[in-house]
Amino acid sequence: MVDTPASALTGPAKLSRLRLRPVGIDTYHENVAYLHRDCEVYRAEGFKALSKIQLHLNGNSILATLNVVDDTRIVDCNEVGLSKSAYLQLRQLSCPPSALTCPSSPDEEVVMVTIGQAEPPASMGALQRKIMGERMTQDDLQAIVHDIAQHKYSKIELSAFLVATNRDELDREEVFFLTQAMVQAGRRLDWHEPMVVDKHCIGGIPGNRTSMLVVPIVAAHGLLCPKTSSRAITSPAGTADTMEVLAKVELPIDELHDIVRRHRACLAWGGTSNLSPADDVLISVERPLSLDAPGQMVASILSKKVAAGSTHLVLDIPIGPSAKVRSMPEAQRLRRLFEYVAGRMNLAIDVVITDGRQPIGLGIGPVLEARDVMQVLENDPAAPMDLRQKALRLAGRMIEFDPDVRGGDGFAIARDILDSGRALAKMNDLIQAQGSAGFDHHHPSLAPLCLEVNAPRSGMVTGIDNLQLARIARLAGAPKISNAGVDLCHQLGSEVQAGEVLYRVYAAYPADLAFAQQAVGKSDGYTLGEAVDLPHVFVEF
Amino acid sequence: MVDTPASALTGPAKLSRLRLRPVGIDTYHENVAYLHRDCEVYRAEGFKALSKIQLHLNGNSILATLNVVDDTRIVDCNEVGLSKSAYLQLRQLSCPPSALTCPSSPDEEVVMVTIGQAEPPASMGALQRKIMGERMTQDDLQAIVHDIAQHKYSKIELSAFLVATNRDELDREEVFFLTQAMVQAGRRLDWHEPMVVDKHCIGGIPGNRTSMLVVPIVAAHGLLCPKTSSRAITSPAGTADTMEVLAKVELPIDELHDIVRRHRACLAWGGTSNLSPADDVLISVERPLSLDAPGQMVASILSKKVAAGSTHLVLDIPIGPSAKVRSMPEAQRLRRLFEYVAGRMNLAIDVVITDGRQPIGLGIGPVLEARDVMQVLENDPAAPMDLRQKALRLAGRMIEFDPDVRGGDGFAIARDILDSGRALAKMNDLIQAQGSAGFDHHHPSLAPLCLEVNAPRSGMVTGIDNLQLARIARLAGAPKISNAGVDLCHQLGSEVQAGEVLYRVYAAYPADLAFAQQAVGKSDGYTLGEAVDLPHVFVEF
Repeated sequence: MVDTPASALTGPAKLSRLRLRPVGIDTYHENVAYLHRDCEVYRAEGFKALSKIQLHLNGNSILATLNVVDDTRIVDCNEVGLSKSAYLQLRQLSCPPSALTCPSSPDEEVVMVTIGQAEPPASMGALQRKIMGERMTQDDLQAIVHDIAQHKYSKIELSAFLVATNRDELDREEVFFLTQAMVQAGRRLDWHEPMVVDKHCIGGIPGNRTSMLVVPIVAAHGLLCPKTSSRAITSPAGTADTMEVLAKVELPIDELHDIVRRHRACLAWGGTSNLSPADDVLISVERPLSLDAPGQMVASILSKKVAAGSTHLVLDIPIGPSAKVRSMPEAQRLRRLFEYVAGRMNLAIDVVITDGRQPIGLGIGPVLEARDVMQVLENDPAAPMDLRQKALRLAGRMIEFDPDVRGGDGFAIARDILDSGRALAKMNDLIQAQGSAGFDHHHPSLAPLCLEVNAPRSGMVTGIDNLQLARIARLAGAPKISNAGVDLCHQLGSEVQAGEVLYRVYAAYPADLAFAQQAVGKSDGYTLGEAVDLPHVFVEF
Repeated sequence: MVDTPASALTGPAKLSRLRLRPVGIDTYHENVAYLHRDCEVYRAEGFKALSKIQLHLNGNSILATLNVVDDTRIVDCNEVGLSKSAYLQLRQLSCPPSALTCPSSPDEEVVMVTIGQAEPPASMGALQRKIMGERMTQDDLQAIVHDIAQHKYSKIELSAFLVATNRDELDREEVFFLTQAMVQAGRRLDWHEPMVVDKHCIGGIPGNRTSMLVVPIVAAHGLLCPKTSSRAITSPAGTADTMEVLAKVELPIDELHDIVRRHRACLAWGGTSNLSPADDVLISVERPLSLDAPGQMVASILSKKVAAGSTHLVLDIPIGPSAKVRSMPEAQRLRRLFEYVAGRMNLAIDVVITDGRQPIGLGIGPVLEARDVMQVLENDPAAPMDLRQKALRLAGRMIEFDPDVRGGDGFAIARDILDSGRALAKMNDLIQAQGSAGFDHHHPSLAPLCLEVNAPRSGMVTGIDNLQLARIARLAGAPKISNAGVDLCHQLGSEVQAGEVLYRVYAAYPADLAFAQQAVGKSDGYTLGEAVDLPHVFVEF
């Protein structure tokens, strides 16, 4: 029972010439084209709102979803408008690679484009077959990912792809094909060294800023660790947000290479490097759908790592009642999938299952987390021990990738590097090299408004809800307000008296604080009870 | 492995006041809101492109997907823009029901709205569970359909719903719940009679204008048949497009009721009557995805019929190599699903499986099809016999809903009504009542440009590709150009000589004709062979 899409019915594209105009609307990763309702082409061609059209400029073309406009201030009848990123794409495609300034041409420049009905993306047949329940081949996934990276899929089609490949709809071979295709669709870095190490956490645990400790430790040991991280999407801080408290993280690619060559490491934002571009597009739709299927997660993480030139990866899977992964069997299944696909991609992987029952460290929010990290690096007695321990474990596992290190010796080597101050020295080198922000972690300037959340009764802390604490920190303003967030005073197992402060919420604006307070009112995220109520530690760690 | 959506993390909505501004962009059924990047609210709230925001006006609210704007000609920093239909929705919600002119208030009127982060639609949990593979309850489907009808789903979420309920993902009980919920989410007509008959074809066969014959026949018999039809979406003509050649089809609801009361029938466009509004929203996404799953098709068709007040339905399922349904087992499965759901909805249904191997009638395109219909009504010897026969069969089955008619007598009654001219008289009554367009079917004015497509060799016509003929007619300009299209000279089983005309293509513009010719060059849609090559007739009919 297959119907034929409207666009397929139109057969060959009919071309018409219009003036190209950038429209100042950010439609995120979707290409949107704007045509006036009275535009000759719109009336003649039988375009429909949401149908896709193809725009040609100097022999290159892009696809865009059509919005119909009734306001000549947006587009005239002889113009076609393009949303911001679509405009840049078409201009960039049509420029010689050297002419980097080309896309920023003024509005007034008259550039004629031809537009026509779009043939559906070549891979739509493969997507249709997947929706109908068939298995995808290597060619299918290459075609789909290629079209996604080229922005040929509308949001509707992206969403269809994600749901059709959700749950266990992808077998592990398909996940490998997907990962491989995602790497091939973008740029791939080559560091010209036999071993390039990296670490990654699947996420969901507030505070968890181990990368900022692990990277200086393993780089001090001599491993090459060019770390690029993301900014927070749904969390109160990403590694890039936290590192930005200390130093510049948006660096030109040449400068980044130079820093890595001199210091064996970097801690930069990975956003602009066009590694696995299909992943960036897919994430823009995964996020509003709250999808995070195992196959998609594995392909997303591993494609980014391989594209970034990593050869050895330590992967952290936290388990806990409010973590992404909530049971050991689920963690084991995920581990096997990571190992299988990494193996096929020639990426050495060491999966570490960790304790995800509560936030790691005490601060939640960029400045508070940067303070925790610097305290650990300085061997400050006030430093959060759980953050230190976890970072040492992960760094130890990475150091054991070194063929000269015996299995089991990594932890001690990492601890020596940290305790001796060599990790701090390396971090200071990186901060200077990337451009210091002049952060004084001894006197971090926190957001001025503070709410103290007190224990309603005496007892042992037997639960801390990762999701609720993240929510409160975000409502307080993190990560946009870098010095807003939550600062914990008690962790699991701690005995508290009624009225004692459980944590402090910092905010810059009264409205933010009020909203955080409202969320605290619903649930403060802490459970108080007896020692027997403490959740089982899933891991040895 | 469930992540929390960004919007859920924000907890309670933060409200901020902005001036409401209509933005002249037609985003089809998706509500889109436009905020300037420098808008205080945008910066402070941590909204993201594609995140959903909620707009409140006079105690009512709508949800909209956010696009970020960098051009003050579209929205200012103290404004929030809304796409066309979203603007109307919010204004209409906020007006007293009597004030029908309210939404068309001038741009200058200052209306303050408050906006805030949107809580995800209440039914997102149910959708997530369905994506994870669970079965939906009656309450789940009611919540989802309610939110869809209220435009609370983004295109991304609609697409996710469609793919998650595609194939056989809906069991027949869920299809019933979906149908019921779709009826409940909209208006429902009541004709105050015990029997209201209707017919429907699942589509995909060009020409097939039986409704315009069946309606006057059964109305002449005395049955109440208030027929509303759709316009073409992907086909070269819908019943509404073809009827519009003869008479007005867009009628105010009062006038329509009046016509039905006086003539027992109407042949009108059903587009504006807000019957099963969720279906209209879903179709806007089904179309670009080319999805047409059995469960969705059954719910869509039956919800529209029940909402329109029908009590008895004849349903036509054509089978053929280029029809929607291509095998008898598939048709039987579909029949059972229609019968089960109709039964639960208290709708009497008679499913008729018909010959879908080729177009019905000779003309394809509004004017050409109107000519065929009028020839049949006038008992013109040149009238296409297949169209007459099929219409009589379907009308006969509808007449047998009449408790006074014996099973098997319907066909003869219908034939008498047609042969005696009573059907023609009824049709002329309807044309006059709705407002005649003055069409002269004896001398239909066809589009001026004509292409004759000739047989490349001698032989018997053993195949006519419905999809290719529809494609050629659309490229030639149908249905936008009502007198463009395809006129067949030969049907299946006809013996042709090399060079004889197979069909004529009519177009109004040279470019249209050239594109149609190009498609003919790829495939003319006809297969010539021997009698033994004729496809099996699946049905007795």
